[in-house]
Amino acid sequence: MRIGAIEAGGTKMVCGIGTPEGKIVDRISFPTEHPDITMPKVIAYFKDTKVEAIGIGTFGPINLKAGDRRYGSITTTPKPGWAHYPFLDQLRSQYDIPFGWDTDVNAAAYGESVWGAAKGLQSCMYYTIGTGIGVGIYSGGELVHGLVHPEGGHIPVRRHLADPYPGRCPYHQDCLEGMAAGPAVEDRWGQKAGDLPMDHPAWAIEAYYIAQAVTIAILMNSPEKVILGGGVMQQRQLLPLIQDEVKRSLNGYLQAEEITKRMEAYIVTPGLGQEAGLYGALALGLKAWEESRRNASI
Amino acid sequence: MRIGAIEAGGTKMVCGIGTPEGKIVDRISFPTEHPDITMPKVIAYFKDTKVEAIGIGTFGPINLKAGDRRYGSITTTPKPGWAHYPFLDQLRSQYDIPFGWDTDVNAAAYGESVWGAAKGLQSCMYYTIGTGIGVGIYSGGELVHGLVHPEGGHIPVRRHLADPYPGRCPYHQDCLEGMAAGPAVEDRWGQKAGDLPMDHPAWAIEAYYIAQAVTIAILMNSPEKVILGGGVMQQRQLLPLIQDEVKRSLNGYLQAEEITKRMEAYIVTPGLGQEAGLYGALALGLKAWEESRRNASI
Repeated sequence: MRIGAIEAGGTKMVCGIGTPEGKIVDRISFPTEHPDITMPKVIAYFKDTKVEAIGIGTFGPINLKAGDRRYGSITTTPKPGWAHYPFLDQLRSQYDIPFGWDTDVNAAAYGESVWGAAKGLQSCMYYTIGTGIGVGIYSGGELVHGLVHPEGGHIPVRRHLADPYPGRCPYHQDCLEGMAAGPAVEDRWGQKAGDLPMDHPAWAIEAYYIAQAVTIAILMNSPEKVILGGGVMQQRQLLPLIQDEVKRSLNGYLQAEEITKRMEAYIVTPGLGQEAGLYGALALGLKAWEESRRNASI
Repeated sequence: MRIGAIEAGGTKMVCGIGTPEGKIVDRISFPTEHPDITMPKVIAYFKDTKVEAIGIGTFGPINLKAGDRRYGSITTTPKPGWAHYPFLDQLRSQYDIPFGWDTDVNAAAYGESVWGAAKGLQSCMYYTIGTGIGVGIYSGGELVHGLVHPEGGHIPVRRHLADPYPGRCPYHQDCLEGMAAGPAVEDRWGQKAGDLPMDHPAWAIEAYYIAQAVTIAILMNSPEKVILGGGVMQQRQLLPLIQDEVKRSLNGYLQAEEITKRMEAYIVTPGLGQEAGLYGALALGLKAWEESRRNASI
């Protein structure tokens, strides 16, 4: 049995085929262009693969309201052609199989809970820190949707005292994403984040903002694991700086040994590495397949 | 059929008896003193009442880990006698009935979802802003627990530019609670919050902090309703200031009509008024009773 997976990113579309045990056996990726160009490639990829379900984890914001006529569409995005695009319906018109549908970060959080760093836990939060900042929340064994879906990349943050950078979010100027996403790091220091030396002051400032977001995440939702992914987290020196800063800012308030004694196992990078999103999409597809089986047997 | 309800506050213990339809038919309250004084009163209140379950919503932090040997106890509190106190076990030793157990704010969030402002919704967040600040989260039809439970009263906040007040949280100095709970308002202005005139600059500053917390709550968890309770919210002028400030700070980023068009129905005061906590405890008791019935019938 094979399950399809689509990780739809703002710049890159990754499609894959995997097993119910969580093994990706094939993958392909191409740039995310206008949907008229990109979607036929996605549809063509799954032709004759006999996948029995497909999971989609996508950039957003998206419509997740079960029963809504626009369920399964991207909502408001500046990406040409994608605003209000009926992503799920386009696929459904080609493949009569169950589909899983969620944000890229919720998908990654779910994948990590099934096969990754949060395996066996009932809750985790997954941050991606890259071109943008997004957060997925798995809580009580379910992904959090609510009114829209988590958009925790845009929370207001306290400024680092040594940071005069104005921020670059078009909506909120100096929100978390405006201050700490990859383009903000590059804009602040005049060179790509990946080119900055490990001991550059950039990293203490970056860790400060990410740690603030993680501190808020822990206080708000009390996840059993915090997982930090995305391109910026490829800088290995960041994680210990963030762990230290979170511990310092919580200041002993939360008496959980996961925080006070085992921080290095509490705030972690993805167990599924850079493919957390694709594995998450696979896990969503598998879940959709299982639910359709369960419904069929009732 | 009668269900018992206990709203255990840091200063006041409220006990009540209600019906499955959500009517409180009797109530009593007394100060929360040392448990050796207070718990016998609680136990005595329910004697001969024939309640078939009791729900408890309590000050915390508390142990909510199902299966843990300390499940049902208060954990670390400065209140004399209550640290590590086995609250639930004390009651269970007297009454062989199902018990519901959660934080006071989770209880209130749940009560509001059953009979109050979030009736019929699958998610809401309940803030109490009073002597302290706490938040309860109902998400996907379940209360959020996780590693400990939500403690969103202690998130870091941006300072209001016209506010030199240093904050008074013993753990975090100028976190949300340290800047915006009732004692901070009194300390900042030298008089009780309730004695400040409606047009005092205190209220714009207070609204700024509460709105910042609500903005973060909405971006993080995307609740279908935000409910603001507690003593400070008795100041009627606060709610519209908060609604305006949240709208301003989100700045059109979240395209949900609940926010862009119906803010006055999205951020609200409790539908169950000042008894949201007691109704919430009743709802927890009813849920415990229903679950025990379901388990018995399997």
